[in-house]
Amino acid sequence: MHPENHVQAPSPEEALQTFREFARGTLLGRDAELDSGAEPPLDLYRPLHKSGLLNWWLPEEYGGAGLGLTDSVDIVSELAYADAGSAFTLLISVLSSSMVSLYGSPELKEEFLTAMTREGGYSAALGSEQEAGSELINLTTTLTRRGDQVVLNGEKMFSTNSGFADYLIVFAKSAAEKGKPAAYHAVLVPRGTPGARVVKRWDMIGLRSAGTYQVSFTDCAVPSGNVLDGPGLKIIEIGLNSSRILIGAIALGVARRIRDICLDYAITKPLAGHKLIENAVFASKIGQMEMQIEVMRSQCRTAAREYDEIMAMPDPPAEFLRRGALRSALTTKMFCGQTGWQIATVGSEMFGGLGYTTDLPISKYLRDIRAVTIVEAGDDVLRELVFRRFVLPPNRRI
Amino acid sequence: MHPENHVQAPSPEEALQTFREFARGTLLGRDAELDSGAEPPLDLYRPLHKSGLLNWWLPEEYGGAGLGLTDSVDIVSELAYADAGSAFTLLISVLSSSMVSLYGSPELKEEFLTAMTREGGYSAALGSEQEAGSELINLTTTLTRRGDQVVLNGEKMFSTNSGFADYLIVFAKSAAEKGKPAAYHAVLVPRGTPGARVVKRWDMIGLRSAGTYQVSFTDCAVPSGNVLDGPGLKIIEIGLNSSRILIGAIALGVARRIRDICLDYAITKPLAGHKLIENAVFASKIGQMEMQIEVMRSQCRTAAREYDEIMAMPDPPAEFLRRGALRSALTTKMFCGQTGWQIATVGSEMFGGLGYTTDLPISKYLRDIRAVTIVEAGDDVLRELVFRRFVLPPNRRI
Amino acid sequence: MHPENHVQAPSPEEALQTFREFARGTLLGRDAELDSGAEPPLDLYRPLHKSGLLNWWLPEEYGGAGLGLTDSVDIVSELAYADAGSAFTLLISVLSSSMVSLYGSPELKEEFLTAMTREGGYSAALGSEQEAGSELINLTTTLTRRGDQVVLNGEKMFSTNSGFADYLIVFAKSAAEKGKPAAYHAVLVPRGTPGARVVKRWDMIGLRSAGTYQVSFTDCAVPSGNVLDGPGLKIIEIGLNSSRILIGAIALGVARRIRDICLDYAITKPLAGHKLIENAVFASKIGQMEMQIEVMRSQCRTAAREYDEIMAMPDPPAEFLRRGALRSALTTKMFCGQTGWQIATVGSEMFGGLGYTTDLPISKYLRDIRAVTIVEAGDDVLRELVFRRFVLPPNRRI
Amino acid sequence: MHPENHVQAPSPEEALQTFREFARGTLLGRDAELDSGAEPPLDLYRPLHKSGLLNWWLPEEYGGAGLGLTDSVDIVSELAYADAGSAFTLLISVLSSSMVSLYGSPELKEEFLTAMTREGGYSAALGSEQEAGSELINLTTTLTRRGDQVVLNGEKMFSTNSGFADYLIVFAKSAAEKGKPAAYHAVLVPRGTPGARVVKRWDMIGLRSAGTYQVSFTDCAVPSGNVLDGPGLKIIEIGLNSSRILIGAIALGVARRIRDICLDYAITKPLAGHKLIENAVFASKIGQMEMQIEVMRSQCRTAAREYDEIMAMPDPPAEFLRRGALRSALTTKMFCGQTGWQIATVGSEMFGGLGYTTDLPISKYLRDIRAVTIVEAGDDVLRELVFRRFVLPPNRRI
Repeated sequence: MHPENHVQAPSPEEALQTFREFARGTLLGRDAELDSGAEPPLDLYRPLHKSGLLNWWLPEEYGGAGLGLTDSVDIVSELAYADAGSAFTLLISVLSSSMVSLYGSPELKEEFLTAMTREGGYSAALGSEQEAGSELINLTTTLTRRGDQVVLNGEKMFSTNSGFADYLIVFAKSAAEKGKPAAYHAVLVPRGTPGARVVKRWDMIGLRSAGTYQVSFTDCAVPSGNVLDGPGLKIIEIGLNSSRILIGAIALGVARRIRDICLDYAITKPLAGHKLIENAVFASKIGQMEMQIEVMRSQCRTAAREYDEIMAMPDPPAEFLRRGALRSALTTKMFCGQTGWQIATVGSEMFGGLGYTTDLPISKYLRDIRAVTIVEAGDDVLRELVFRRFVLPPNRRI
Repeated sequence: MHPENHVQAPSPEEALQTFREFARGTLLGRDAELDSGAEPPLDLYRPLHKSGLLNWWLPEEYGGAGLGLTDSVDIVSELAYADAGSAFTLLISVLSSSMVSLYGSPELKEEFLTAMTREGGYSAALGSEQEAGSELINLTTTLTRRGDQVVLNGEKMFSTNSGFADYLIVFAKSAAEKGKPAAYHAVLVPRGTPGARVVKRWDMIGLRSAGTYQVSFTDCAVPSGNVLDGPGLKIIEIGLNSSRILIGAIALGVARRIRDICLDYAITKPLAGHKLIENAVFASKIGQMEMQIEVMRSQCRTAAREYDEIMAMPDPPAEFLRRGALRSALTTKMFCGQTGWQIATVGSEMFGGLGYTTDLPISKYLRDIRAVTIVEAGDDVLRELVFRRFVLPPNRRI
Repeated sequence: MHPENHVQAPSPEEALQTFREFARGTLLGRDAELDSGAEPPLDLYRPLHKSGLLNWWLPEEYGGAGLGLTDSVDIVSELAYADAGSAFTLLISVLSSSMVSLYGSPELKEEFLTAMTREGGYSAALGSEQEAGSELINLTTTLTRRGDQVVLNGEKMFSTNSGFADYLIVFAKSAAEKGKPAAYHAVLVPRGTPGARVVKRWDMIGLRSAGTYQVSFTDCAVPSGNVLDGPGLKIIEIGLNSSRILIGAIALGVARRIRDICLDYAITKPLAGHKLIENAVFASKIGQMEMQIEVMRSQCRTAAREYDEIMAMPDPPAEFLRRGALRSALTTKMFCGQTGWQIATVGSEMFGGLGYTTDLPISKYLRDIRAVTIVEAGDDVLRELVFRRFVLPPNRRI
Repeated sequence: MHPENHVQAPSPEEALQTFREFARGTLLGRDAELDSGAEPPLDLYRPLHKSGLLNWWLPEEYGGAGLGLTDSVDIVSELAYADAGSAFTLLISVLSSSMVSLYGSPELKEEFLTAMTREGGYSAALGSEQEAGSELINLTTTLTRRGDQVVLNGEKMFSTNSGFADYLIVFAKSAAEKGKPAAYHAVLVPRGTPGARVVKRWDMIGLRSAGTYQVSFTDCAVPSGNVLDGPGLKIIEIGLNSSRILIGAIALGVARRIRDICLDYAITKPLAGHKLIENAVFASKIGQMEMQIEVMRSQCRTAAREYDEIMAMPDPPAEFLRRGALRSALTTKMFCGQTGWQIATVGSEMFGGLGYTTDLPISKYLRDIRAVTIVEAGDDVLRELVFRRFVLPPNRRI
């Protein structure tokens, strides 16, 4: 427990209200600026740190607000309502920090999670590589033991936040030894470790207020204690459970925003002597959207509740190792990505020619929401995974 | 409390297990017979009464098992997995009996709900009419007060179970009087009341083990106390909350069944020197199905939980009158109907020519699942309703 | 030229008019009867023979009307408008008879095609088998040479018209001989040949006025001259060019019919104080349908024109051997099957509860149109074929 | 006939070849530059003028190449394959120039069409307005007769090419006079006419190499002879016949390009020990794309052929006035817009994370192809138009 954070943690309702005010007050209406591709506007997010709500999921024992994933769904939805890229920046540290929470040594947690809550920093996970793509089993970044250190060599393709993160969780493969197969490890690399280098920031087509980077490691040495305790491929699967659910919630937030700008437009748009909002076809489209939005939220929350239930068990790390990727998390990202895209498609046809200009932000939302299907494995990969893990074994089917 | 039912009510888990065994043991595999259009096989369902689980939602104070709607989702899904028509027959009494539970006088409830649990009977709601369709505001069935009786005249179009139900809940309009507009009422008509006549059973294209009837009322008189206490148009909206959620669960059950017959087929079907189940396109389709099935269940359960939460409030009848149609119930029926149809469409292409014959049951499932979108108002009506009720007032949007 | 048919062949316009009158006068409105699964109503089709238009595509030199495939698109569409099963019965002889036209000996053509035009008979092709499915390369029906005869042994799964056809075109494999691989052959088996036996008629879920049969061959011997001149697997591909295009036109006809019954219904259906036909959502759905119907026709006619252009070349048999399956024919069946199903889906939601009864014929149309995607290879098979044949070789892409 | 153009016009095949070489040689591979939003790169298109093929549809009697719309489909597809914005710039003059061809006085045609072929200029149509949107009946730009001049006042919302066009065709309404209702007129305004002013260039989300402008008219006077001869609302409908068909062909070209970049990527992309191109799901998706691409082309060409058939009639202007908007043209734009978007959606999921960066051009294609549904009236407007014009009158249905 850290004295400077000894204030009462906000209740989930208070936290949600804080995020809503932040999103509406600080982010909303800055579409052009946040879509410009400028450096990630971390300063904008400082007030969240002041409220003790940056990285709102971090455990109370390390000074965090300790909010659950169920609470996080509406938080992310509110953030993404205003700017999906900011929502992504703010949530994606959950992927790497939850790996530390679950599989880091007490010392690692004490050091790095406490620093995150105290300083208001970010963290990043680095899995994907050029050749391997999202098939991590084929990754080529190597981990070599040298004394009480491990040394990393390799290059990582897409990693959000790693350009400014306080620590990186890097996935690497140690050479096969003594008849044992190669092992995969997750390694914590603190910011500024020699040999770690940001190669470039990618120019993304959406979520442009977020920063996604290519990072290389050349003889990058960290203490052996920085290796997380567990099989690397499993650890990343487990970390993705939280981020995939919250990425689904990005689609929820953007979809809600699209609905609202359609309504704002329809109130004033003349059509055949009336206003568009009185038109039955418009009503039908928006009614369908609203139905889909509700289902997206039901799914996000159902998955998040399952996650929180595991976290409330006696031994979450073991339970997660037993389960690996949660089907509910896979489902959430797939469903919200697909449904969000349908909503954005309908939305992008709603504004006539004006919707094809940058005078309206619908193009930003269309590009932003596209990410949900693409990041953290596309639908083809996930469908195959669901089939193999949750359909072929008959007793795992719903 | 009724002595003959004084045994401990089964737990939700036990109940679900009973229904699962019943569905797999008694219904499954009788597709041709249950699709034949013969009389509804009520005898098949007697064992459920013996287990105290026919009309499983009826309150314990009237001798029922008192299961909630959340528990009911998986029950209906298990029933529909085996036969959607049976599931429909068994669940649809919830529509009319929940109106009695909520808005009937103590005497009505004591008489009719107790009889239902004791005898194992059915009930039916009669709303739709030829001209009015599902726009009940235009219904023409009249209610006239005569002494301490009310007299019904009119004809009702589609009513499931009314051919054998122990009581009917009939919607009728009393004439405008003394400057007051016409009023709509829900009236309980016991089986065998003179003047109530089944005109015909409809020949349905699916759910063919269920019975849906056209019923006429000619000077059909019942005691005034049989009029439920509340505005008729609101009462039916409220009743539909429970049935629409469970109709959604029919789609869930049929979809699970379609998935499973696809897998059974794929295990043996040769394809290009392998089996179909090893084919990547097949895996992709089933992975998508499984994802959709999970979302259907999440939505059904989320809506059911909301319903159960209202039922746990101090004054559920008043709370329901305040809320009317629940958006979650509308959403569930729309979403499950649409998604179930997508799954059935994919399923119907999975078996080659054999799937176009009656040797396989996929055609039955395709016809059965179609009902979900059609009964209790189609999507065009519901989209418009969602738009008007839950989108136009900004604070009701998600 | 055959004296008894020496009357002037009807012009395409006259022929189309004859078919339209036949379809509207003789078939339309008999939905229940034609959907009953009774024996194929061949007597109903006799007037077409009297008009010289049964098997309207047969060449004039054998007494046929010699109409092209482009003309056939609207003919089939008119027939399917009234009854898809009849359209299928009437068109499917094109598959087998065109193989004879292209690859039969002069004697075979003289005998069997002339008989068809003179007597008004039918023909059938028999390719699919239980194990092989539509992968004909795996077929197990054997052809053995015995003197100047060939002997067939095996069983064929789905073959429309073969229960009453005057001749069958059977696909079989001769044993590998003298270092040459197994060869596939197409063999004409006249009706009544000993050893050929109809095992059963399939109970189909749609196209129920057509007859599709399982047929076995046990030491079934025919003269060697009955073997068509060309590689069997190529011959069936080529035959399918004509039938796949016309099966596409079935979807066109059924879709037109669905549109029209929607409109007939909407003219009288009350909705919110107006008629359904005045409703903007209805207009939008039908406008979309009409757009899709036009595209279906454009595609059918484009493919048919390509076919007719090949038939107008100096050596159509050689040209077809060079080309094999026409991409336009594959495209037509895929597109019309998919689009027809979308239209039927929308149509099946248009009639409220009434559309879920057999009082309206929409269920028949839904089941009928489903066939288009399923018969003569499903979309998964065809997508893979298009990819392999017309995408991988860059110069074959459009 | 103009001596300087007295060279033989290129044949359609030669012309197509020229365009293909131009597209591949000059435009292809400049995605970033052409997507930058810089001024329309008119200099890039000069070689087309040198080949006599800028505005390739202009009649030979005014020095043009006189190519028909059927030929134009593949030309536009080739251009859009390389850059949709360039295709749009190059084709959209057909909208305004065909109005002049059909309804301009001999003097107007001689002056303005000849100048176009001689100088290689552009033309533009100006219909849409802020309030009226695409409902031109509500337009507020006024035309007042003053002596032998007409004077225009008003502002036009979206007009492509008008920032650099040699002449504008402006739609305006003359006041009601002498018991006659207001009349709509199409007026040719030469470049540089006082009172015509480009208010701004719109910042479009796609087709960014094209220029679309807002233009105002303040007491802008032109000779009365510049008013085209016919009812303005009909003239624009007729002009849109050609441009809507060719805009459909933009979707065709972009879709072909998307398919090809998918294939290029799949050849090298590793997947589970193979290459993506060997994956069955990939093959299935591309097979479906190829099918859709073929149907798009069939529909474009079918519509274009109908247009060319009207142009080959004795009195095309009268025939077009009789027909107004061609259903085939409406269908083409709707279908190609919808189908192109489906293809782009699939394409945008094909490249994993890389497809979400600007390193690959898929985002440009996604934004470019979106225009097809939006420009020249969205699908809601067109569905309603098809319904009213081509469905309600039973004899106009297909």
